[in-house]
Amino acid sequence: MKNILIIGCGLLGSSLLRAIKKKKISKQILIYEKSKKNILKIKKLKLPGIIINKLDQGISHVDLIIICTPMSEYKNLILKINNFISSKTIITDVGSSKLEPLKTIKKFLRKDIFWISSHPIAGSEVSGPEYGKYDLFENKWCVLIREKNTKRNHLRILIKFWKKIGSKVILMNPEKHDKIFSITSHLPHLIAYNLVKSAQDFEKKQKYDLIKYSAGGLRDFSRIAASNEIMWRDIFFYNNKNMSIAINLFIQNLNSFKKDMNSRNNKSILKKLIQTKKVRSKIIKLKQDINKPDFGRS
Amino acid sequence: MKNILIIGCGLLGSSLLRAIKKKKISKQILIYEKSKKNILKIKKLKLPGIIINKLDQGISHVDLIIICTPMSEYKNLILKINNFISSKTIITDVGSSKLEPLKTIKKFLRKDIFWISSHPIAGSEVSGPEYGKYDLFENKWCVLIREKNTKRNHLRILIKFWKKIGSKVILMNPEKHDKIFSITSHLPHLIAYNLVKSAQDFEKKQKYDLIKYSAGGLRDFSRIAASNEIMWRDIFFYNNKNMSIAINLFIQNLNSFKKDMNSRNNKSILKKLIQTKKVRSKIIKLKQDINKPDFGRS
Repeated sequence: MKNILIIGCGLLGSSLLRAIKKKKISKQILIYEKSKKNILKIKKLKLPGIIINKLDQGISHVDLIIICTPMSEYKNLILKINNFISSKTIITDVGSSKLEPLKTIKKFLRKDIFWISSHPIAGSEVSGPEYGKYDLFENKWCVLIREKNTKRNHLRILIKFWKKIGSKVILMNPEKHDKIFSITSHLPHLIAYNLVKSAQDFEKKQKYDLIKYSAGGLRDFSRIAASNEIMWRDIFFYNNKNMSIAINLFIQNLNSFKKDMNSRNNKSILKKLIQTKKVRSKIIKLKQDINKPDFGRS
Repeated sequence: MKNILIIGCGLLGSSLLRAIKKKKISKQILIYEKSKKNILKIKKLKLPGIIINKLDQGISHVDLIIICTPMSEYKNLILKINNFISSKTIITDVGSSKLEPLKTIKKFLRKDIFWISSHPIAGSEVSGPEYGKYDLFENKWCVLIREKNTKRNHLRILIKFWKKIGSKVILMNPEKHDKIFSITSHLPHLIAYNLVKSAQDFEKKQKYDLIKYSAGGLRDFSRIAASNEIMWRDIFFYNNKNMSIAINLFIQNLNSFKKDMNSRNNKSILKKLIQTKKVRSKIIKLKQDINKPDFGRS
């Protein structure tokens, strides 16, 4: 590729920037970033690429645009770039929900432009270009969204791009994507936020100093609950239907656990605890987590 | 101290064993372990201490007994040791719930014997003597339970013991202990088990292969949900009253999150997400977790 434009240069955008440079995927990389704070950081870190101040005719020649902003920015960005991009440009994004954002894209994007949505399963609780890493996507899954009207040729180019970045690519339709990640990612985040919220409520009510005893379990949840609030608000809003189903299932199971506890139903509770234990070894076998007790922390 | 007896030599017992040896806290260490598998491991690992096969007159001279078995074993153990221990022996345990086990202890333990309960806030999702570490308790909190009838002199000995092990000691009554840990430890574990259970239920129903996409959040919960089922069944059963209150608060908050999501209440959801974020930095400041993004995993 000759030219790639990254819009939004936080953790994911700057990691892509580093990977594209490191792996020599594009001759030129353009960066568009709204936050002045982030621009200063990018300059200070001497990250590769040319920072552009406006989305104007300067973007008409890019081969690939990768949008790494919160999903709630898509509409405004589309309205800006519509006037300048060429129909040869492929657009992708790295958003975590698909169905709702694709509705916005279809409604507002110029009809001769193709946007194939991506979702690299990589990230962290920290935000900003200073935390980016060239190997963030290495050996991680990247879901590409295939729809009825997806052009094979464009898809082939995008698959090649993510493979060069280091990802393992898998194709899904947006419905399946949003269902799967409502359970493996979105619900876990909501649950982590909710647990920390409940601990804070309890602390306020009881006037106990809880946090210093958080090593017993709470600390693990606090990591996920420290994730970027704008990004996660967007995910929760855009995948709310699947999330509601997931929450209902979660509450139903929690009430069943409570019943087991209060009736001291040994057989039922042990069955649950033994069954859930199996998932950890499966996750480690699939290399989705580090094979060390306590994440190798201590 | 001249003699310490460790009853139950899994992760915690064997860590104490290693620490006592390393820090030369006792001249002799006796080990009583029910599981033949664990005895073989202890021998193979050449852990220090003398393995005893019976709880009989051989334990009459020990200064300190530390019980590191699941809490559901306490009654049987008490009935065994009652006949042999001296009133000079101090007994402690490392159990995670306090009120209910103390009822059993008071009911069955010989009236001239003193048991001061301990709870070191240290552990892992793995079980067994092969995972023990001499520094497991280093700079970790250890809660000692002070009750009305607790002898100052015994308490002083036990505080000294845990400090030598490397712990920071704090005194609490059993009611406060069980309330605090219902939120910082017991609820997080139940929630982790419940999330993994919900993911398994979803997987079965939808026939999707979820686990390979667990890096988006689920994997974190799977670590805690891999914890020992007997230990955690006992905790849930013995602290069920506080847990029920905690579960109700959790469900109430979760329904409020769901309402925010479905009504796209931007102000309310952002307030929650921003507020919960603050806990992470507090935990890191208090040195209750590693100060690295993603637990320093990648």
